[in-house]
Amino acid sequence: MMARPEGSIFKLCFLCSLIANLFFGVNLYLGRRGVGGWKWSSDEVNVQGLSWRRRRRPSRRRRGSARAHGRAFLDGAVADGRPACECNTCYGGPDCSLFLPSCSANADGGDPLFLEPFWKQHAESSAVVVAGWHRMSYSFSDQTTLSQELESLLRKLHSQVGNAITDDKYILFGAGSTQLLNAAVHALSHLNSSFPASAVASIPYYALYQMQTEFFDSADCSFQGDPARWKNATNTTGDIIEFVTAPNNPNGQLNEAILHGPNVKTIHDRAYYWPHFTGIPSPADEDLTIFTISKLTGHAGSRFGWAFIRNEEVYQRMNMYLQLNMMGVSRDTQLRAMKLLKVIIEDGGREIFEFGYKTMTKRWDRLRKTLSMSNRFSLQKVPPENCTYFQKVREPTPAYAWVKCEREEDKNCIEILNAAKILGRGGSIFHDDDRYARLSLIRSDDDFDMLISRLESLVAKEDGAKIM
Amino acid sequence: MMARPEGSIFKLCFLCSLIANLFFGVNLYLGRRGVGGWKWSSDEVNVQGLSWRRRRRPSRRRRGSARAHGRAFLDGAVADGRPACECNTCYGGPDCSLFLPSCSANADGGDPLFLEPFWKQHAESSAVVVAGWHRMSYSFSDQTTLSQELESLLRKLHSQVGNAITDDKYILFGAGSTQLLNAAVHALSHLNSSFPASAVASIPYYALYQMQTEFFDSADCSFQGDPARWKNATNTTGDIIEFVTAPNNPNGQLNEAILHGPNVKTIHDRAYYWPHFTGIPSPADEDLTIFTISKLTGHAGSRFGWAFIRNEEVYQRMNMYLQLNMMGVSRDTQLRAMKLLKVIIEDGGREIFEFGYKTMTKRWDRLRKTLSMSNRFSLQKVPPENCTYFQKVREPTPAYAWVKCEREEDKNCIEILNAAKILGRGGSIFHDDDRYARLSLIRSDDDFDMLISRLESLVAKEDGAKIM
Repeated sequence: MMARPEGSIFKLCFLCSLIANLFFGVNLYLGRRGVGGWKWSSDEVNVQGLSWRRRRRPSRRRRGSARAHGRAFLDGAVADGRPACECNTCYGGPDCSLFLPSCSANADGGDPLFLEPFWKQHAESSAVVVAGWHRMSYSFSDQTTLSQELESLLRKLHSQVGNAITDDKYILFGAGSTQLLNAAVHALSHLNSSFPASAVASIPYYALYQMQTEFFDSADCSFQGDPARWKNATNTTGDIIEFVTAPNNPNGQLNEAILHGPNVKTIHDRAYYWPHFTGIPSPADEDLTIFTISKLTGHAGSRFGWAFIRNEEVYQRMNMYLQLNMMGVSRDTQLRAMKLLKVIIEDGGREIFEFGYKTMTKRWDRLRKTLSMSNRFSLQKVPPENCTYFQKVREPTPAYAWVKCEREEDKNCIEILNAAKILGRGGSIFHDDDRYARLSLIRSDDDFDMLISRLESLVAKEDGAKIM
Repeated sequence: MMARPEGSIFKLCFLCSLIANLFFGVNLYLGRRGVGGWKWSSDEVNVQGLSWRRRRRPSRRRRGSARAHGRAFLDGAVADGRPACECNTCYGGPDCSLFLPSCSANADGGDPLFLEPFWKQHAESSAVVVAGWHRMSYSFSDQTTLSQELESLLRKLHSQVGNAITDDKYILFGAGSTQLLNAAVHALSHLNSSFPASAVASIPYYALYQMQTEFFDSADCSFQGDPARWKNATNTTGDIIEFVTAPNNPNGQLNEAILHGPNVKTIHDRAYYWPHFTGIPSPADEDLTIFTISKLTGHAGSRFGWAFIRNEEVYQRMNMYLQLNMMGVSRDTQLRAMKLLKVIIEDGGREIFEFGYKTMTKRWDRLRKTLSMSNRFSLQKVPPENCTYFQKVREPTPAYAWVKCEREEDKNCIEILNAAKILGRGGSIFHDDDRYARLSLIRSDDDFDMLISRLESLVAKEDGAKIM
């Protein structure tokens, strides 16, 4: 059930406090007070700096009760000389304590804020200080735009998790998997054939594949929808590019390639192939595999992804795309990714993946329980998988619920959900039937709590809802 | 003349020392020593932290003699538990004090490291601490991917400098001007006409314009070279997109649009329109103007640029490109850009532009003096301009020397320079005669010193060189 805090000026959000402390601590630390004006005792550090939590680490219980509904950032708006709070969905007021009861639950985008509490718990070790003169150059000392240290950390992480074989593969960095996906389509079009290529993806599929291909590559590659119709068409004139997403967005299935053959190229989107979401039955060992930090650490805003590529020509073509498109990923982003990965790798990923898996398991348990009382809505079924990382067979905990409206008359499921103040994405966005809708389960705790609350109300109104 | 320091273990580079101090300071500050293990006196801060310079600010003279030939970064390689030095061109050894006398002077790329000393002088105020949980979301609280605070700072800076009118214009951020240039071509192709567009740029022009257009937009837009041939061609079937670069890369001229008319769209590349390089006769007030932080603050590695756009449709089309290409600029980069801009804006840009202008003036003086003794090589002539920012008429100090080989037999100027151990770019890269070559004047002090040294040797060998 949702906690609805009373609005009170005294209940300043924990995060606002923490970041304001950080803000003023940093100002104290880095600010100009003249050469002779340096004054700073270690007491002040403890009170104002990042180490605030060292002195007063709230108990699990206390933190729960003081949980905030917003956050303030160094680059956010400033109110009265302090960074202003930015409130979670359904919360408002200067300290984000005001619950807005009529607002809609947001289960729309894939914002991976379910991992934010992990990073708050590791605020100190995961912070990075960037000097003003850090990496101003276009290139690293090896004349590339790619940090060797970051590359090593990524390869080490995949080896720890066992979700990808990276030996004998080239690596490229991109601005999220978003940019790499299109770089891959560009590189694979006209690889063997002068005819335009055809891109396909099993329904339901992530809408970006089609949008990008049609927006950027319409002359070289046309999007043709489901690969099933191409299965027996061996005499196509151009190459076929198949997007294979495993686990799949939106339904969490561990998809495999449908098409095979000399004129078929496959782009494996492995954004969700981490222990948060799925068992890891075996390491991916594919010609072209794309990952993103967004669904690994939750840093969607950092826009960082990477690709492993077996074939040198494909690698060179993708690299040319990335260089001409933006001359490599921001060094600031690479530095930050490096710092985050170091925190993860330190214990072999144990802490973050246990955090992610537990959080997702709890959310799925609550969601299943809520919908178990319904005859109207059903959830996708994803078979259990062996997880070599956790060394057990486990239920998958996909990032999204793929909800089906079961009643004959509920032909447009997202409309039903919208009417019940639940935001999500209709099936047709994924080229599937609108009887389905995608609900994001990886957003903030507040978003998820609100989703459950709205679903509970919706199910309670069902005629003939099951009785517990 | 070049200073050639003796290699000695005692002459540890200043930068290595500073960043190693920062590194260990930060580790002390942020590192894990257990809840009870916090020990840190303000003395240690002064020695180990960013404030090192507070206690011992070397005199101008001392700093000169202790000048380093390398730098170490947090994300660089680690040797013996310390960040390893990355040496400037022509320097080597563990502390970068070893001069490599046979190496070539690098005047090739436009790496804007001439501004690095400015940021070292402002190491404290320009540093930024990024918390592990900073801006994890895909979007800011206004659901865009663009920081409102950063936007305000950019508009304020242009108002202070007087180099662009930003009122009533949309703004977009991109991964450097690189990405924005292509987004603009994409947006302007097929704007009014279903025929493919033609892109043009006055010779000599920046090679990227053509490379991008041909790589990304070949079906929608063909690159046609110089606009002069289109001047009287009013009955073209498609739109014409003219790149206008002012000051121009490579020759520093304040180019203006050649083509006008209802089917002409102009992309104004204003990367170098800052007081470092040119007088600012009047603020740019164009339909589509692109800037980059690279040539403003010197942070080429951050990959950050911005565009001002008058027309809403063009803005929407460019925005669609940027969203589908990478879902906005990394929030880490936006935070860093914000911090850097705050430092600049604090005194209306006075300090950084005086630093940049003085540095470039000194370099041009040395270059002119060196080549004044030559009959073989000449420099471009760029007329003086009124500078509303410095409130005086001033000689331009372009980012690049556009050298002409004057001897009849020296048909390939860059080959002559390469043979004299000078790296640069031949005229044909800019679609001009190879009798010209571009030498970059905005690289590090070491690179520029080496360039002058090599040029002096080359000129000294001239038969009939002028005698001072």
